[in-house]
Amino acid sequence: MDEIFEKTLLYDFYGELLTDNQKKIYELYHLDDLSLGEISQQMNISRQGVHDTLKRCDLSLKNFEEKLGLVDKFIKNKNAMNEIHKITTNILNDYQQDDILKNSLNAIDKIAIGILEEL
Amino acid sequence: MDEIFEKTLLYDFYGELLTDNQKKIYELYHLDDLSLGEISQQMNISRQGVHDTLKRCDLSLKNFEEKLGLVDKFIKNKNAMNEIHKITTNILNDYQQDDILKNSLNAIDKIAIGILEEL
Repeated sequence: MDEIFEKTLLYDFYGELLTDNQKKIYELYHLDDLSLGEISQQMNISRQGVHDTLKRCDLSLKNFEEKLGLVDKFIKNKNAMNEIHKITTNILNDYQQDDILKNSLNAIDKIAIGILEEL
Repeated sequence: MDEIFEKTLLYDFYGELLTDNQKKIYELYHLDDLSLGEISQQMNISRQGVHDTLKRCDLSLKNFEEKLGLVDKFIKNKNAMNEIHKITTNILNDYQQDDILKNSLNAIDKIAIGILEEL
């Protein structure tokens, strides 16, 4: 997995488990793209302190993933739902005259898409 | 949700985030069904200490669920996959002669069951 994409997912899933201070510094660096020096000034802590906090955040996020595996599950579920969506779409194309079948497949597709949107 | 069922799910999902000591005491009480007194003896801490640890475990587990909502998601996903399984089974019953359709629906059903098994 691309490293930036992986970091984004890790933060999406486990960011809430970091402390407020860690979140603040993590977001200033990774989302707002500030430098260590700029964050150091803004937060009134040493440059080394910013660096250590960022390192601790990465470790914590990876540790949560090792314990809970949500990012891994998310990717599996997403692929699975996309696959169901693809298959139902194909059948729907082939059986356009059959209203009962269409209703059932639309119901399946709606469920898969609902799950995709909530992942 | 039934309280014991909810506790079991919370521990299933977030138990790994408790400390080893918390896990040990939580399991002795909730899984092995020991009394506070028995755990106090076995772990060589006060009865009050056992009580406080159990209370802290419950708070932590609820706090993780508030932040991550995995139990809630699990129940939604489970219901969704069961629903897809039900619909595909019904269509398969009605279209037993159509091999192409059967293959597609079996593929959908396999995906849904695969997700159910991994939830």
